[in-house]
Parts: sequence; C-alpha cells; structure tokens
Amino acid sequence: MVKFESGYFDRENRKYIINNMTPTRPLVNFIWSEEFMMTLDHFGCGSSFGKVAYSTRRPLIGGEGARLIYVKDRKSGDYFCANGLYTAKPHDFHESHIVPGGQTVIGEEMGIRVSFSLTAPMKGYAELWKVEIENRSDAERELSVYAHACLQADYSGHRSYTCADWNEALGGVLYSHEIYPEPGVTFYEHGHLYFGSSYPVNSYTTSQDKFKGLYRTFAEPVAMEWDALPNNGSSYNDCNTTAVEQRVTLFSGEKKVIYYVAGMAKSPEEACNAARDYLKEGLFEQTMEQRTAIARETEKVFMLESGNEYMDDLVNTWLKNQVDLGKTWARVYGCGFRDVMQDVAAFGSMDPPMARKKILLCLSHQFPNGNTIRMFEPMMRVDYRDGAAWIPETVSVYLNESGDLDFLNVECPYFECDESGTVLDHLRRGMTFLTTVVGEHGLCLWGAGDWNDSTNAAGLRGRGESVWLSIAAVKALKTFAKILNQANLDEEAQKWLAEAEKLTEKINAYGWDRDHYIHGYNDDRKKVGAYESAGAKFYLNMQSWAVLADIATGEAGHKLMDRVEEELKCAYGYVQCAPSYTKGDITIGRTTYFLPGCVENGAVYNHGVTFKIAADCHLGRGDLAYATIRSIMADNPELYHCGVEPYAVTNMYIGPENIYCPKFAPCSWITGTAGWMYRCITEYLLGVQAQFDGLKLVPCIPAELDGTKISRIYRGATYQITIHKGSGKMLVDGQEMDGNIVPIFPAGTTHTVEVWC
Amino acid sequence: MVKFESGYFDRENRKYIINNMTPTRPLVNFIWSEEFMMTLDHFGCGSSFGKVAYSTRRPLIGGEGARLIYVKDRKSGDYFCANGLYTAKPHDFHESHIVPGGQTVIGEEMGIRVSFSLTAPMKGYAELWKVEIENRSDAERELSVYAHACLQADYSGHRSYTCADWNEALGGVLYSHEIYPEPGVTFYEHGHLYFGSSYPVNSYTTSQDKFKGLYRTFAEPVAMEWDALPNNGSSYNDCNTTAVEQRVTLFSGEKKVIYYVAGMAKSPEEACNAARDYLKEGLFEQTMEQRTAIARETEKVFMLESGNEYMDDLVNTWLKNQVDLGKTWARVYGCGFRDVMQDVAAFGSMDPPMARKKILLCLSHQFPNGNTIRMFEPMMRVDYRDGAAWIPETVSVYLNESGDLDFLNVECPYFECDESGTVLDHLRRGMTFLTTVVGEHGLCLWGAGDWNDSTNAAGLRGRGESVWLSIAAVKALKTFAKILNQANLDEEAQKWLAEAEKLTEKINAYGWDRDHYIHGYNDDRKKVGAYESAGAKFYLNMQSWAVLADIATGEAGHKLMDRVEEELKCAYGYVQCAPSYTKGDITIGRTTYFLPGCVENGAVYNHGVTFKIAADCHLGRGDLAYATIRSIMADNPELYHCGVEPYAVTNMYIGPENIYCPKFAPCSWITGTAGWMYRCITEYLLGVQAQFDGLKLVPCIPAELDGTKISRIYRGATYQITIHKGSGKMLVDGQEMDGNIVPIFPAGTTHTVEVWC
Repeated sequence: MVKFESGYFDRENRKYIINNMTPTRPLVNFIWSEEFMMTLDHFGCGSSFGKVAYSTRRPLIGGEGARLIYVKDRKSGDYFCANGLYTAKPHDFHESHIVPGGQTVIGEEMGIRVSFSLTAPMKGYAELWKVEIENRSDAERELSVYAHACLQADYSGHRSYTCADWNEALGGVLYSHEIYPEPGVTFYEHGHLYFGSSYPVNSYTTSQDKFKGLYRTFAEPVAMEWDALPNNGSSYNDCNTTAVEQRVTLFSGEKKVIYYVAGMAKSPEEACNAARDYLKEGLFEQTMEQRTAIARETEKVFMLESGNEYMDDLVNTWLKNQVDLGKTWARVYGCGFRDVMQDVAAFGSMDPPMARKKILLCLSHQFPNGNTIRMFEPMMRVDYRDGAAWIPETVSVYLNESGDLDFLNVECPYFECDESGTVLDHLRRGMTFLTTVVGEHGLCLWGAGDWNDSTNAAGLRGRGESVWLSIAAVKALKTFAKILNQANLDEEAQKWLAEAEKLTEKINAYGWDRDHYIHGYNDDRKKVGAYESAGAKFYLNMQSWAVLADIATGEAGHKLMDRVEEELKCAYGYVQCAPSYTKGDITIGRTTYFLPGCVENGAVYNHGVTFKIAADCHLGRGDLAYATIRSIMADNPELYHCGVEPYAVTNMYIGPENIYCPKFAPCSWITGTAGWMYRCITEYLLGVQAQFDGLKLVPCIPAELDGTKISRIYRGATYQITIHKGSGKMLVDGQEMDGNIVPIFPAGTTHTVEVWC
Repeated sequence: MVKFESGYFDRENRKYIINNMTPTRPLVNFIWSEEFMMTLDHFGCGSSFGKVAYSTRRPLIGGEGARLIYVKDRKSGDYFCANGLYTAKPHDFHESHIVPGGQTVIGEEMGIRVSFSLTAPMKGYAELWKVEIENRSDAERELSVYAHACLQADYSGHRSYTCADWNEALGGVLYSHEIYPEPGVTFYEHGHLYFGSSYPVNSYTTSQDKFKGLYRTFAEPVAMEWDALPNNGSSYNDCNTTAVEQRVTLFSGEKKVIYYVAGMAKSPEEACNAARDYLKEGLFEQTMEQRTAIARETEKVFMLESGNEYMDDLVNTWLKNQVDLGKTWARVYGCGFRDVMQDVAAFGSMDPPMARKKILLCLSHQFPNGNTIRMFEPMMRVDYRDGAAWIPETVSVYLNESGDLDFLNVECPYFECDESGTVLDHLRRGMTFLTTVVGEHGLCLWGAGDWNDSTNAAGLRGRGESVWLSIAAVKALKTFAKILNQANLDEEAQKWLAEAEKLTEKINAYGWDRDHYIHGYNDDRKKVGAYESAGAKFYLNMQSWAVLADIATGEAGHKLMDRVEEELKCAYGYVQCAPSYTKGDITIGRTTYFLPGCVENGAVYNHGVTFKIAADCHLGRGDLAYATIRSIMADNPELYHCGVEPYAVTNMYIGPENIYCPKFAPCSWITGTAGWMYRCITEYLLGVQAQFDGLKLVPCIPAELDGTKISRIYRGATYQITIHKGSGKMLVDGQEMDGNIVPIFPAGTTHTVEVWC
C-alpha cells in the first residue's frame, strides 16, 4: 500500500483516507452536480455556489470557518471543534475520507467522535450534511452540538439589504438579501438562504460576533462559555454566520445522527419547501448511493489491473472523477474552449451522449471565421488562436466511440451571429482558419496565444507566428482527413492532407533550430525557444507534438525526443521549457515575467508532460512513457511533500529552477492533465483505442506491466483484455486474429482478448 | 470628564485614549497624506495604500494580522502579541492612543510594555513605525521582538510574479511583483515593496506558513516555538508576510526603541534609498511634530470654549481633523462631487488657498450642460442631478473667507470636452441646468437621484421630479445672487432671484402635502414622502431645506419644524424618514429595499440631522438646535454602546425601527456630517459667519452656553469673541457697534468682541 504524506487509499471502497491533520497544504475536494459546486478542504471548509443561470454563480457558503461542528460536554464545559484545527494540539483522532461526490471528516476528542459527512444533491442548490456523534467514553454524556455555517447572504456588498433570523415554518434560520436590481449590480433571484436540521434546535444565533466573538478566534468561540446561544436574529453587518445548538445525551457507545441542509431559494416559502424536501429521511444516504452507482457504472467502461495499484486506482476511479469535473465545470472559474474539448475527448468513452452535447455546446462558441472564443461562462474574448485545432480530435473520439456518423450533419450555430452550419462545416471552417490565417513564413499567426496561455504577447501586433500551433494544425488536419474518410469524402480528405503537407514543409523549413522545433517567431521576427533566444531555448510541447503529428517520424522522432530527455528532464517530470526566463520580455509575454520554475516558465507543467508521454508511446518508447508517468505521479518519493491530493492530478509542480519552492503543487484538480493522463495510460501506453470500425490494440507496455488486465466496454460489448510482453499476436475469444483491430461485437456480449506486444 | 464605552479624551494632548480592548466594534483611525492612506483599527491593524496616479491605489499592507508586534522571553519561552487580542484573556495593560495623524498601541504582558506607534510621512508611499519596549519587571530580560507585516505584494492576483527575500543592500525584506502589463489588468509601476528596520535583524521569514503556521492562528504562531525565524525567502503563494526577529536585553526599567518602515518603490534601488531615508534618525518624531504643528495651526482658526468640553474638543480638534480627511480623500472609496464640495465649504475657513484649488478640481468635473459627475476617482457616471446645487455655497464660503473676487474670473475646463469657462460661467451653467431641466410640475427632474443616493429609481424614466432638489436649487440661486451682488452684477442677480421665486411657487403649489414638503413625484406621477405614500410619508431634509432656503419662513417655518419634532424625533436624533419602507418599490429605488432603520430608510442619518440643526438655528431655535447636536453626539447615554469612535462623527445610527441593531453606528469618519456639524456649531449655533465684508455674528445659543468664548482668525486678524445671553448688542474692542457685522481688521491684529443674543 502506497503511503502518502497526507494518507492512503482504501482501494476497495474507492476512498482516500487523509490521516494527517496538517499536510503541506490543505487538500482540496470538489463535490458537484451540473448546477451546484462545493470546493472543500480536508476539514470540510471552503466555498460553495450554485450556477443559477448562464455564467451566474450565487454563493451559498464560504469564508473562514465556513462549516464547523463543535461539541461541548455540558457537565465539564470542555469542547472541541470536530473539523478544524485552530490550536497547536491535534485531535486525539482525525481523518478525512474522500470519495467521488462526498467527504467525511472525523474528529475525536474527549471520548466523543464526530463524523461530519457532506454531499450535494444531484439537482438543486443545496449542501447536505450528516453529522454522527458517537460516545466512545465509558460514561453517559450530556452534550451540546453546535453546527456553524457561514452563509453568504450579502452578495451585493450592500449590507442594508440583509437580515437573518429564526423562521418557524422552516424550523431553521433564514437569511434574506433582496436587493433593488440596480443597473450594473449583480442581481440574483435567489435572495434567500436557509439552514435547517432534522433534529430539534435548542438555541441559535445569526451573529458571528455572538458565536465566535468579535475579538476571538474559532479556537475559543465566546459562545462556548454560555449555557446556550442567545437566540438572536441580526441585520446589517452581523449576518455572516448561522449557529444552532442541539442537545443530545448519549450512553457509552451510543450514536446519534443529525442531518442539516443549507440552500438558496427565491422566496421564504420556497426555502421552507426545499429544506423539508432535502431533510427527508434517507435522502442523504440515497444521494450518496446514487452518486456511487453512477461512479461505478462509469468505472466499468475501463477497468485496469496492471500491478501498479496506484495507477490502477487513478485510471479506474480518480481520473474519471476528475475528468467528470472537467467536462461538467471545465476549470470551474470558467469554461475554456480548449479545456472542455480535451476533457470531453477523455470522458467521451465513458458517456458518448454527453460528449455529443458538450461538443455542440463548444461549437456554438466558434466564430464564423473558424476560430473560437478562448473561454465562455464567463466570456474571455482575448484573441487566442488554437481553439479550432482541438475540434477534430474530440469529434473523432465521439465518432469512434459511438459510430454516430450522422453527427457530422447536425446543425449548430456559430457564435454571436445568425449563421449556423453542420458539425462538418464547423470542422471545415476551423481547418480553413488554421491553414489560411498564416504569416510571412507560412506558419499559423500567433495572435494573443496558442496552448501556451502565457506566451501572450508574441503575436499581438499581427506578425508573430506559432510553430506549435502550426504543428497542432497539421495533427488536426490529419485527424480531420480520417473523419472525412469515415464519411466517404476521400477527395476532400486528400485536399486537407495536402494542406497538412504544405504546412509541414514550412514547419521544417522555418520552425527548426539545429535539433529541435522552436516555439515560434514574435512580431519582431525574433525566434522564441531557439538557441539564440535570451530566455527559454528549448520547449517541450513542440517536440512532443511534432511526433504526435507525424512530422518527426522514425529515427528523427527518436533523436528529437532524446534531446527532450537531455534538456528537460528532472527528478519529478519534464519542465515546460529550459532555461526559465529570468527577465520580462514584453515582446513574448507573461511567461517571461513569471518567476523561474513557475507555470509555463519552467515548471513541470503536467499537461505538457502528458503530451510527451503520448509522444513516447507513439514512437513505441513504452519504457520511457511509463517512467514519465511514474515520475509525475504523487507516489514519486521526490514529491512526498509536494502537497498534491493523491486522488487528483495537478496542473504543475514548481520547477527545479525556482529556489524557494521547487516540487510544490499549489493547485490541482482543474487541469487538462487529468484527461490526457487518462488517455495516455489507456490509449497510448495500454493502447486500447476505440476506432470507427473496432477496438484497436496497440499497447507498448514495459516489462513490469506484463500481464496487465483490462475490461473495456465499447459499443455496449465488454472486452476483457490481457496484455502480454512478446511478439505481436492477438487472440480474440481464443482465436488468433490478423491485425490489431478487434471487431465490433453485439452490445451486451463479453469477449476475451489476449494481445502480445 | 466624559467616559465613553471605549475610553476618554486626554484634552490637553488632543488624544483619545482607548482603554477598552473589546469595544462594540473595532475603532477606526485614518492616517493620511495627500498621496498615502492608512485605515487602522484600534490595534493598529487594517490596510494602507498609496495613490500612485489618478484614481490608482496601490495596496501596501493589509489582511488579517496586518501589523503585529510579538515579544518573547527567551528564557521562559512565554510570548504575547502586543497589539492584538486573539485569546479570551485581555492584556495586563492595553491602550490605544489616537491623535490626528498618528496612533500608539500599548500592550503589556509578562512585565514587558510595548508601545507601537504609527504614522505616515507627509510625502511618499510609506508607513513609519516606532516600537518601544520597556522592561517593567524587576529582572533583566532577554527578549526576541518580532515585527510582522502583511505586505500586499501580489496585487495582480497572479502569484507566479511574486517573490520575497532578504535584501542585503536594504537591510530588510524586499518583495517583487513585476507583472507583464497585460491589457485589462491593473498595472502599477510600484512593483516592489520593502520592510526595513533601524535595528539589526537576527532572523526573518517571508512566509506566513513559517510565522503563523498554516494551521495556526495568531494566538499561537508556530514561530514562537522556535529559537529564531527560519531565514527563508519565498515565492508563489507563500509571500504574504514579513516577520523579522530582533534581540534585545533590557535591565529592569530599561527601554529600547526600534523603528521600522514599510513602503513601495519602482525598483529595488529605489526601495533601498527610500528605506534609508525613512529610517533616518528622528524622522518619525519630526513627522509627528510636523503633523501636530499643522493641526495646531488649523485649530487656531476657530477655538471654542463653551463649557461643553466634548463639543469644544470636537470643534477645536476632531471635526477639523475629520474634515481634513474629507477635503483630501472625500469618502476614501471615491470623491463625490457633492461630498468634496461640502467638505471644502467646511474646511474653507481653515485653508482658503486649498479651498480654491479643490473647487477648481471639482468644477473640472462639471459637464458643459451645468450638471456634474456623481463621483470621480473612480468615475461614477450615474445621472445624479444635485451636483450644481452645491457649487454656489462653497464658492461663496471661499469668497467670504478670502475676499478673492477675482476667483470668479478664473478659467476652468468642463468635464470631458474642449470647452472651458470662468468660475462664474460654471456657476451660471449650473444654475441654468437646475432651472431649465424641469418636469411637468416645473420642478427639477429627479434623474438617477439627488442628495438621497438611494432614492435612485424615482426619475430614471425622465419624468420624476425632486422637490428636495428644487428647494436646494432655490437656496443655490439665492446664494448665487449674493455672489453676483458681491461682483456688482446686481441685474443678473435679480434675474436668478426671479428664477428662485418661480421655482418657489412651483414647490409650494406641487411639493406640499397638508403640513410638510414631499420628497417628489416618481416617473408614475406618484408622490414620494406624502401621506398617501405606501412607505415613508414624512421626510426630514425637505423640511429643513425649505427653512434654509427661506421658502418656509417665520411662523410657517416654525410650524413645519414642529411637525419634524413630532414625526421624526427619537432618543438619539432624528430619522431621515418615517415610517421606514418595509417593501421594495422599484419605482422609488434602493432605499425601499433597505431594511427598516438602515441608511436613508429610517436611520438617524446624521448628515440630514445637521441640516435640521442648521434650520433650527436659521429660525432662531437655538435650544432645539443644541439639544439636537447633543442627541447625536457620542456622549448621549443612549449611544453608549453604539460603537462609534468619539473622535469622529458617524454617518448614521441605525434607526429605532430596526429590530436587530438600533443605535448601532457601523461606519464613521467618511461622512458629510463632519463638515456640516462643524458649520452647524460654529456658523449656525454660535453664529460666527465669515461675510465678504466682515465677520457676521448671529449666535443663537441656549442659556447653558452663556459666556461661550471663541477665538476666530478671519482675513488674518484674530477675533476674540464672547457670547452672552441677553439683548442683541455688540461691543468691539469695548465699543458698542451697530448691526451684527464686525469689520475686517488688518491681518495680525487681535480684537475683542462681545455679543449678546
């Protein structure tokens, strides 16, 4: 069993157990539905909000001490906060259990164990809490249980609108913040927040000043000194807390469960009804069962048993969960076109109808000229140029997984205009944009950026050209040509392949510097990512993508990727570029102002590392690919104190050139790395690739994964695959087959496949 | 001596002593120069920022635990935070001393007293700290002193730009946050923040995680457990703190002073130079002396000895200080046209050249049509209509105080156009706007609002008319006519007086409801502030201003103000309207959505109360005026727990109709109340009015203020005035004089005046 700084996996129960109360940084967990989002730390604090309309998020809970459960022994007056650490002394027992869609924080002091579980319903704007109090001491205990929540009523900032008080019909606390819908001021119809409980409330307060105390910390809330809470409502600036006190007497060994709900509503009546519905007996457990059932169904699409248990857990459970977040909420702060497209490409095998829907959503953010918006919800209109390059791959994944060729003829509007076109037309316009909006070297114009969000000033004046984008365009054109072949449009396919060829020539002529591809030319015609460059002389992505686009093939590909090993490798992955910039360059952009080792400036930017893994596999270098996967996985001993949640891959580890915090993983979860990591392992390393006409098997596993077993559902049939090291033969249901494509079997049937590589 | 909940005044030293560590709410203190601002609580925490360019504020210090001084006994390991309260146990001794332009927080524990003084230099973007440590125990003590500051380096939110470390040349800690100046992202040239000290630093850290500790509170910083700080720089997300540790050994009774500076600079070199300059020996003391000298000079313009010591202190010191804030920083969050104009009208007597400058600044925000912008720095373009109504009064104050009639001919541009005009032209256009932009009743159109910021929807559709604005226009026209008379433009004066007369007729015909003036007509032609209104039926300001504008005179004025006494009086002033709205009305505006008793919806909105005081005096009702002044002063026993700083008047006390927090004073300092309160006492109650041709004396004091002494500097001469109750005669230098205007005497001379009223 792998032990991480923060804890370990309970594999059978798909659970990560955090048993370190004070890890390098708080561990993050997301719990979400299509319309509600909770961002929790390992204590269960953090914020939540509802997507109440397009691009409109109404906060529910947040701030310091967002959710706290205190227990006080009424006889001794001793108390503790079950899910927070505000003193130097850790709890007698403390764990936090992470499962997809849920979390339980367990704290024990004074012989009382509190288990605080959180989830969100599949529909609606609410948090569901379940609090179990267990008397593990030998004596009967008379307890006060305090549930404390920071409801974010005051969203407009104008406190004169706010009041909070007990509401008898609700049997809980109701906050109102009904504002005058002033021009320029955000207005939410959900002007009411509520907090209710399944168990009688003995006392309450809506004032943080009367719970924590104005000059206190959550280590010593003033209310703990009182027999009960003061039963006060509040208004103006003292409406930032709900605390209810409930009394339970427990025999030794006895447990008591209390449920709570916090939510938002358009009226007090709606709040009362919602609270009643969400507190219905069994709803919490039903919700968790439903979430678990969906997750287990999704797992079945690809179940892995490779011998690397952590990698298996990632593929089977945790990456799927993380990509589910991506395809639903993208980067949470906003939906990047490229981000959603990539996440959908990864999640597509698990839910093709969803992929169809999300692709159409994305394409409706494509301009009639073929380019796309950088981000929607909220809109980010900066003139990035790479959107179109991501379309063919994701459409191809959907077609291959579903066989739904008619999808190409589905009509979809263009962004902010009256025009619409078929999916095929969207693809064509995207490819037209990429092949025609080129600069003086015939390479794609850089505009405000490509994949590298932070090389955002190289092409602002309209002359700079991106080599990476040109390479990505070649790859996209080739994928598009395959789609056209599938649609029996071979002639058109040839035309686009010719475009790809033309672009390839330009890339090789102008995008190459001695032994590697450069990042591009800026507006001043200066090379970025070349040996003559002042900062980064060698970038990762251009090399990986040149391989993936079959621009650098065979020996040339190997030599190129060998240089990557020499230039960019470190003890925990591969840096995005080397050396890091140390001086801001206004003709290149943000990345040059970043500290060395940060983000695109020399971090181990994992999204880029996954491209490199795919390229390794594409060249058949499975050993290197697997070593690279292992180097960025959280069980790399180098990364023991990096801070990452082992159940979610991170967008980056700060690079070795940063002298202050190399290896640190400041934020995770919201990254394209998850989807690519999933695909790298399943489609590239294990080589299980859905094709339009069957399941292609092109594994390139290292020896230590010999005997890997996979269960893959494809077009409704189950393929039970075993991968052996050895000469390249394949047995399907015991029969040797030519080639590497397993045919499409009737849905509901199960077949065994053995493959040697 | 008046005792307040929070402390008491040290009158002689112009100091307010806060001796209650836990008042109703933290007390606020502002320390400012023209370009730098500190907003402190009574512990010395709070934020600071520099105005580095027009409308551009670069933060320097802020956040939780913004400035903290800890002392640790190196032998016992015991420690305490000298200027914060994070545990339930108050300090052995704790006081906070407020003086204009400075503050000292004194905390004592373990026999060690720390005095932490703060000020800002008159020029530049920096905070100056002086920390005195005194050993009040009997034994020699080996101490570590920790100075902790939260420097706000990371202004762009992109943490990849940030690093912090010890800088040898600086002898302190330097933060860098040099960003790519991206379109749409705030950019400050001041990319560097520094923190330096006059005394050798033994150890340091730039990580809050290594000072407070990631999972700790400021009650138990993890660093206190260590022998020294870890001497680490930091980058990315852990650059939010500076802490330096310094070692001092003190004999019993010995003191040690350490100086610190925190500031911002454009380069590391500039930071080093600035730190050296600001840490020069004696600079802190010189700055405080300079600030005190300026304040004492300003005091001399009007020194009061009335027998009401608290009122005397307010007039002599604290209101002057507060109005100085107003004329320099307006409401701090922005410069309202009306706000600056009123504050300048109050501060004009103390600094006529400044008034001249500020009037021109304001007039440059007047549109060519005569209306003004609502707010500048930052711009707020909402279509308020009252700006022009405030111009004549402030210009008149300046002319009367200075005699500088040429000012009327000074050219000043109009806002956002190529046009400019003389001050007189600005006045004319303002009056033209008020008299011509009228509605179907001939009253001023309401637009997006008048003085009442929150009745902001009554005239949005272009039909609503404001009675208050019409009354204010009448007052403005009459003041303008006086200015014209002074400029020998009597004919034009007559013309504007005729306009005033015309408007008055309309007001009396359409703005009246049974026994009081209404607020106006909304776009639906419904009366606001009339008996037939659903919400507030009776407003304060229309009545006060009708008296001030001489629309309601003599008996009519008395009857009107008697109704105010009946309808709006409460135990701590007069509510702005009654009853409060209890239901949002989209045809009136924000005020109707506010909770009852909040802000313009039924609070004791003190700006309005000062208008009422002026009106009382204007009618000769000095007893009522004085009683009203006393009712809103912080020594009203009803207001003991209201939370206000006794050294700064507050914009409001929450009204009696609010069931949760009546009397509470949530925020103070930044309010037009200060300037009007000052004028109400000095010009209305005491009746010392600068005129163009002399000092008019029209006191209307109550009997208990009999014998009030005033020293007033006017046109350079000093007038030593005594006010007696009695028949209306006046002695000047012992000689009885006719009328009530004391002539202009040569600058530098001193004269005695005795007046009976």
